Amino acid sequence: MEFDYSKPHEECGVFGVYSMDGALNPAYATYNGLLALQHRGQESCGIAVNDQGVISCYKDMGLVTETFNDKILRELKGQIAVGHVRYSTAGASVRENSQPLVMRYIKGTLAIAHNGNLSNAYELRHELEHRGCIFQTTIDSEVIAYLIARERVKAPSIEEAVYRAMPKVQGSYSMIVMSPQKLIAVRDPNGFRPLCIGRVENSYVFASETCALDACGAEFVRDVEPGEIVVADKDGLRSMTLPNKAAKSLCVFEYIYFARTDSVVDGISVYEARKEAGRLLARQHPVEADMVIGVPESGIDAAIGYSEESGIPYQKGIVKNGYIGRTFIKPDQASRERSVRIKLNALGTAVKGKRVVMLDDSIVRGTTCARIVSMLKDAGAKEVHLRISSPPFLWPCYYGTDIPSKDELIACKHTIEEIGKMSFADSIEFLALENLPKMLGVESDCGHYCDACFSGRYPAAVPSHSMASKENKYCVPIRRD
Amino acid sequence: MEFDYSKPHEECGVFGVYSMDGALNPAYATYNGLLALQHRGQESCGIAVNDQGVISCYKDMGLVTETFNDKILRELKGQIAVGHVRYSTAGASVRENSQPLVMRYIKGTLAIAHNGNLSNAYELRHELEHRGCIFQTTIDSEVIAYLIARERVKAPSIEEAVYRAMPKVQGSYSMIVMSPQKLIAVRDPNGFRPLCIGRVENSYVFASETCALDACGAEFVRDVEPGEIVVADKDGLRSMTLPNKAAKSLCVFEYIYFARTDSVVDGISVYEARKEAGRLLARQHPVEADMVIGVPESGIDAAIGYSEESGIPYQKGIVKNGYIGRTFIKPDQASRERSVRIKLNALGTAVKGKRVVMLDDSIVRGTTCARIVSMLKDAGAKEVHLRISSPPFLWPCYYGTDIPSKDELIACKHTIEEIGKMSFADSIEFLALENLPKMLGVESDCGHYCDACFSGRYPAAVPSHSMASKENKYCVPIRRD
Amino acid sequence: MEFDYSKPHEECGVFGVYSMDGALNPAYATYNGLLALQHRGQESCGIAVNDQGVISCYKDMGLVTETFNDKILRELKGQIAVGHVRYSTAGASVRENSQPLVMRYIKGTLAIAHNGNLSNAYELRHELEHRGCIFQTTIDSEVIAYLIARERVKAPSIEEAVYRAMPKVQGSYSMIVMSPQKLIAVRDPNGFRPLCIGRVENSYVFASETCALDACGAEFVRDVEPGEIVVADKDGLRSMTLPNKAAKSLCVFEYIYFARTDSVVDGISVYEARKEAGRLLARQHPVEADMVIGVPESGIDAAIGYSEESGIPYQKGIVKNGYIGRTFIKPDQASRERSVRIKLNALGTAVKGKRVVMLDDSIVRGTTCARIVSMLKDAGAKEVHLRISSPPFLWPCYYGTDIPSKDELIACKHTIEEIGKMSFADSIEFLALENLPKMLGVESDCGHYCDACFSGRYPAAVPSHSMASKENKYCVPIRRD
Amino acid sequence: MEFDYSKPHEECGVFGVYSMDGALNPAYATYNGLLALQHRGQESCGIAVNDQGVISCYKDMGLVTETFNDKILRELKGQIAVGHVRYSTAGASVRENSQPLVMRYIKGTLAIAHNGNLSNAYELRHELEHRGCIFQTTIDSEVIAYLIARERVKAPSIEEAVYRAMPKVQGSYSMIVMSPQKLIAVRDPNGFRPLCIGRVENSYVFASETCALDACGAEFVRDVEPGEIVVADKDGLRSMTLPNKAAKSLCVFEYIYFARTDSVVDGISVYEARKEAGRLLARQHPVEADMVIGVPESGIDAAIGYSEESGIPYQKGIVKNGYIGRTFIKPDQASRERSVRIKLNALGTAVKGKRVVMLDDSIVRGTTCARIVSMLKDAGAKEVHLRISSPPFLWPCYYGTDIPSKDELIACKHTIEEIGKMSFADSIEFLALENLPKMLGVESDCGHYCDACFSGRYPAAVPSHSMASKENKYCVPIRRD
Repeated sequence: MEFDYSKPHEECGVFGVYSMDGALNPAYATYNGLLALQHRGQESCGIAVNDQGVISCYKDMGLVTETFNDKILRELKGQIAVGHVRYSTAGASVRENSQPLVMRYIKGTLAIAHNGNLSNAYELRHELEHRGCIFQTTIDSEVIAYLIARERVKAPSIEEAVYRAMPKVQGSYSMIVMSPQKLIAVRDPNGFRPLCIGRVENSYVFASETCALDACGAEFVRDVEPGEIVVADKDGLRSMTLPNKAAKSLCVFEYIYFARTDSVVDGISVYEARKEAGRLLARQHPVEADMVIGVPESGIDAAIGYSEESGIPYQKGIVKNGYIGRTFIKPDQASRERSVRIKLNALGTAVKGKRVVMLDDSIVRGTTCARIVSMLKDAGAKEVHLRISSPPFLWPCYYGTDIPSKDELIACKHTIEEIGKMSFADSIEFLALENLPKMLGVESDCGHYCDACFSGRYPAAVPSHSMASKENKYCVPIRRD
Repeated sequence: MEFDYSKPHEECGVFGVYSMDGALNPAYATYNGLLALQHRGQESCGIAVNDQGVISCYKDMGLVTETFNDKILRELKGQIAVGHVRYSTAGASVRENSQPLVMRYIKGTLAIAHNGNLSNAYELRHELEHRGCIFQTTIDSEVIAYLIARERVKAPSIEEAVYRAMPKVQGSYSMIVMSPQKLIAVRDPNGFRPLCIGRVENSYVFASETCALDACGAEFVRDVEPGEIVVADKDGLRSMTLPNKAAKSLCVFEYIYFARTDSVVDGISVYEARKEAGRLLARQHPVEADMVIGVPESGIDAAIGYSEESGIPYQKGIVKNGYIGRTFIKPDQASRERSVRIKLNALGTAVKGKRVVMLDDSIVRGTTCARIVSMLKDAGAKEVHLRISSPPFLWPCYYGTDIPSKDELIACKHTIEEIGKMSFADSIEFLALENLPKMLGVESDCGHYCDACFSGRYPAAVPSHSMASKENKYCVPIRRD
Repeated sequence: MEFDYSKPHEECGVFGVYSMDGALNPAYATYNGLLALQHRGQESCGIAVNDQGVISCYKDMGLVTETFNDKILRELKGQIAVGHVRYSTAGASVRENSQPLVMRYIKGTLAIAHNGNLSNAYELRHELEHRGCIFQTTIDSEVIAYLIARERVKAPSIEEAVYRAMPKVQGSYSMIVMSPQKLIAVRDPNGFRPLCIGRVENSYVFASETCALDACGAEFVRDVEPGEIVVADKDGLRSMTLPNKAAKSLCVFEYIYFARTDSVVDGISVYEARKEAGRLLARQHPVEADMVIGVPESGIDAAIGYSEESGIPYQKGIVKNGYIGRTFIKPDQASRERSVRIKLNALGTAVKGKRVVMLDDSIVRGTTCARIVSMLKDAGAKEVHLRISSPPFLWPCYYGTDIPSKDELIACKHTIEEIGKMSFADSIEFLALENLPKMLGVESDCGHYCDACFSGRYPAAVPSHSMASKENKYCVPIRRD
Repeated sequence: MEFDYSKPHEECGVFGVYSMDGALNPAYATYNGLLALQHRGQESCGIAVNDQGVISCYKDMGLVTETFNDKILRELKGQIAVGHVRYSTAGASVRENSQPLVMRYIKGTLAIAHNGNLSNAYELRHELEHRGCIFQTTIDSEVIAYLIARERVKAPSIEEAVYRAMPKVQGSYSMIVMSPQKLIAVRDPNGFRPLCIGRVENSYVFASETCALDACGAEFVRDVEPGEIVVADKDGLRSMTLPNKAAKSLCVFEYIYFARTDSVVDGISVYEARKEAGRLLARQHPVEADMVIGVPESGIDAAIGYSEESGIPYQKGIVKNGYIGRTFIKPDQASRERSVRIKLNALGTAVKGKRVVMLDDSIVRGTTCARIVSMLKDAGAKEVHLRISSPPFLWPCYYGTDIPSKDELIACKHTIEEIGKMSFADSIEFLALENLPKMLGVESDCGHYCDACFSGRYPAAVPSHSMASKENKYCVPIRRD
């Protein structure tokens, strides 16, 4: 739940408000909503508002609290709003790529906030460039904007243009589109990324997660269905279904790591799923120990579950420094060789002389994990047994989760036993792939979730070209700092 | 020459460097060039560089010295560069509209810096939107970028695409285009805005004014001709001529106010032209007086000319505070009623008891002028005779000069005598329209300059729609402070 | 442990490094140490370094990560360093008051970092002013600096000057003084505030809490004793004892709320003390319930203890948003009336239909507590039983803890039953005053801790004047923001 | 008048307002006054206001327009104000040293703004340190503050304390002191630095120069006399004379370079003095030439005078870029070797083929001058004859003017002929020392001005120690940038 740069990351959070009855102040509600979605992206953020058809936008690099202040929010007057928080990889980490994307087209202005990853983005850009299109950013939203704009020339309405445009894109998208009169939420046919609907009186809210509804005082109505287009306008809510419907394949890593523990995604509580993973691990891989601890923050839920099932007491064994964000200066090599405990610290009096079961949500490269186990042992822990509440990462993701290449994935190159040794752990066990349905209380992945990064079973198209290598050839704006 | 917000203003300065031989550091040379062009635009600025085909860009709101620092310039590595300084009207005064515009298109990336005003921009946008184009800014460069990108799909080279695209636009443009391999300067068929070529060894420089060549140590080669496309690439300089050639119509206000006094524009020294205007006024409208003074900065040149012709001694009578820029806080009403002399101050010991001839370059609304005359009288001047080194403003400009509407132009609503009275001046005289050719040493305006704002004779197309009123309906990004 | 503005707050954290052998980089070690002490003060921070007797200092308003960057740390070269993090009340919340205080005096320069509160500061200032002293800040460090400087005129060494000066001040101080050659740690005779010694090879570290030793890789040596002066210089560590020794009276609120859970203060683990408070509450005030939860962060430790003792399972019931710091914009009144859950959110799926025991560390005004209980009930909790791991606040603190006036303390005006009702809780119980020794495993408060804010038993002098009201009459520098 | 870093510089400007009748808003009036005094110091600035005895202060590094904004000025409420602009040498160029200095002492608070240089500052500091004083800055104001504070213990009033304290200091000071009830202006017995009195209704203004009176709409009353203490309080203005009165010795360089051309200092117009210097040079050192030009800004006045006397026409020959301030990035060595003309540019069309007389105010190291002459010759000037409107610098200044050491003064090591050659000038002449009285229209320097930097005749004490070398041993705060 807290952002960890050694973990796979997902790219964005989206939020929208349609408040013709004034039950919500759109800019402030979006600010609160984005605060609640900040864990989905800390690099840049933005809010666009629509005041009687005129769209204003403010966006910049930085956290929501760093980017906005009261003066800016007061100036963002309007009846409709759309907001976005973004994470991105280094090369395109520039102001130009922040969202929402605001653009003028045949029917006035449009603002788009998008969470996901188009697997055919390269081909679409190529084709559009051949028709004389120009691109000023490297984000998928700009591709989508063109597709919608081109359809809108002939389509009778914005929602119809969206309906016609979206089948052309492959991959994942949970998207909010704001037109002069409407707010439209769209979720890709696989429903890779979450998207839900909330309500305050006659005002409507769309958000990536339910925790953002809580943050603005909205009650949960329902999730947007995979392949659904939901339109909020002066007549209330309406729904359409994209023609290319598919089986639901929500990214299972939303439950394991991305989503906030207090969110309910597609009807399943994230907290309960994480605790269940802990319980399953306790049953599957029991161990004699004096205490169960969790790596903050997402490991804690699984630890509580493991403790419940095993009867071994839950304890705090690791303390996180809450004042350390992205800008913190890394310790120099000299001090790294000593055991410097800045971001996480072992709770020495608790772990000293004890046999510890430590729950973590996943292992990517294995280095962070090894460092934490060492720290606990330096602090006096007698044994450390690692329990990982997800299966090993073995495959790349093409739908928006940024997983390192196979070269860097420890599970692609080492057996579980080797990983245990490399982690200095006395034992290590992963949640079994076949336990994922149990974790979520469903029959199987089919129609429910995507676990391609663990299983290699991809529920949708996989890109034929990779744009990644091209990206740096484009435009690398210089940041002032 | 110094920016005065009560004066008409022109919109931009452009600068470009092609330095394959390394004789110039493109980023630093552009920084120096933009410093020298800062009087043409103080709102935003930017530099894009091209390093082996990869384009990087840094741009922001603010002066050149505020926007760039050594660290940024060092990161802007490359062999080619293009830069821009911009002024703009309030509504579109946003970061998104800063230039150069960098975009990806069919053949890689392109950076465009543009000075001028397309008179058919509204129609072109409308037409492009009907083909599904989207616009993310409100600047003309984006329209031009589309036209070039669409031509480039079929054209064999970037310069050929420029050649085919430019005849579609009407109005004024002095533009620099940077492609992965080339730097291209284009001047509209009327040559409304200046553009010149400089050289250091085998490196080439394009700039709005010659003072920018001096600033980077380049020698003047020649002006870009109206309707000319000049291409700098690995083979040196090449030239093409646009098919829609017209008679040269350089904006005469470049000589009167816009250009820096040390620039030579289309072969005519700005300083000499301004002094000649003073001499012509002395002959045309002599007066008995003790001293001649000029309103800093551009009135001083004319004052020196008036003094030379009349034999009345030139004196400093008004002192300008050089530390006051755009951010200075206006005095409150209370202190404005008293005679507060912050930006300009009368030199009391010089003017006390004297009959003063005061030269200024132009009168727009008349308020600034009246305030200065009052100040001199408060400081003890016995008489103040106003001599204006341009004719009265009577007509709007469609080619890039921001002249207020007729309602605000004092000369549209009052006789010269009335203007004199409203200015508290003992006499007032303007340069006669028929003296403009003499000022520049030419036979007539024809084939030389545009004086439409004084004469109403427009040398090129006039827009059928005004986009101005539409602009605010678009996107008004909020500025943080 | 996380800073809560509705809680009493303590004023500072101090850190110092003496590294003649180069085992530590003083500036970076201090940066890491201050990061670990950030919970003791978020308003301003600073680091002074001593390079061969020349002292440099950098300090500013803001968090440690906001104030320092790599460039600044690299410029802070030296062999000795002293750092400070500060909290303060509104009136004196100005850059001038940030620490360390650096000053030139008879023997060169001195830097002072101070945590505590002099109860006779007003009298000392008054007396010094009568001798012609001038004050440029409103911090106690400046008073101490004068006392030391005046003694140093006659004293043979800096430590002797400190020894002679400190008995003149009353109240609390844990202080680090850096002279051209030495680093000196001093703790007041009552030892109100913690201060400990760490070591890396032959380099020495002084810090407010042991968690800061962990952060820079130092091993714990021992606590500085109440009334002890510890001198680090080229000969290693030396110790002196102040003449006015008293019984140890460490502020008990350090265990309850101030100190970080992973610190060990005067030999007692903060985590164990907090858990023990939970266990004592479980025995003293049992209740039938389905789950035990804690208010993040400090309530969680007590909740784990309560769960252990009662056998009722520990659960996460409240989620804290880790991205919300000081600058977050408060929700407007309209949204506050709805249940907006931004900083803390109830974990609905966990608490729904459940009987909940909720542990919190203290109650001051009672408003925060009431808001959290309401939130849990709105989220579906059937019952909420409040257990507070400290006795009710009844008395002001004169030794550095900022407790509101009696008018604002809910326990001064209401019975426990009334507080329960005002909190919407189904039951409420506080830790008994007589359980505080048990919590810490000691016989009695005597010689161990100060609990004056709960008991009214003040172990040291109480001020005769209050400077608080005078402070605003002094100098209120304007912050730009 | 414009700041040139190769020129000697003076250290500060002071401004104060006493406005019990509300005729002036003290903060805004001081802002305007400091804008007009900005040429006296561009490094830091500050304003302190007094609202019913409570003093608030805002100060920072930077120009007046960079440091203050409307929000800050609005918060600076009060009836009395004092402001300061500061230049300083590198070592002490830190925020801590910005003024006004605000401090609490025996009788409340005091704010001090000081322009000048104490020649016995080192001895005074040393003596005060021996009495246990501590110093937090390296500015002379802190020494003065102590002297006043110590006298105030026994003196019946603040003005009496000032009267008793000031005779202890030697050197130059034009100072404004704000106490809870009074505003006091003090000028040293020699009157080295200017200080004048203005008035708006019953409000009083003190300022370094009369141009600051114009800027806030005040009328000039009179100069503060050397050795005079002027007190503004509820009873109006009162005057006292310091016991150690001496002959007036205003720094003659105020007329030559420091003061603004529109100021009248001690009854003499700066503009007229500069023009007279030009006339004297024309008579003393005539030359056959085609035009007279001045190095902007201060050389222009002398050029007008030279032109008047010689009959050779005045022309603009050098253009200054008004957008280049302190932060401009210096050209790299490569471009410096070419003739880069960024800050100053030759007006080629004016000077080409001409014999030019160029007036400059002074020559220090000779490098700037040589660069300008080269630039003119590169631009085609046939001959350049240098005329310097002051005598050669030969001696150090101990009263506040920062003149380089003899090693760096070109006139200490070379004959005038040699200087001419090193400057590439065809001839060079300085104003004769004996012409200085004529320039000012007085009989002799005696009782009028100090010309020690030219003549070596020091009118007051010269320091026995130099603190300069000690300064860096003190405290070198690190600037973030």
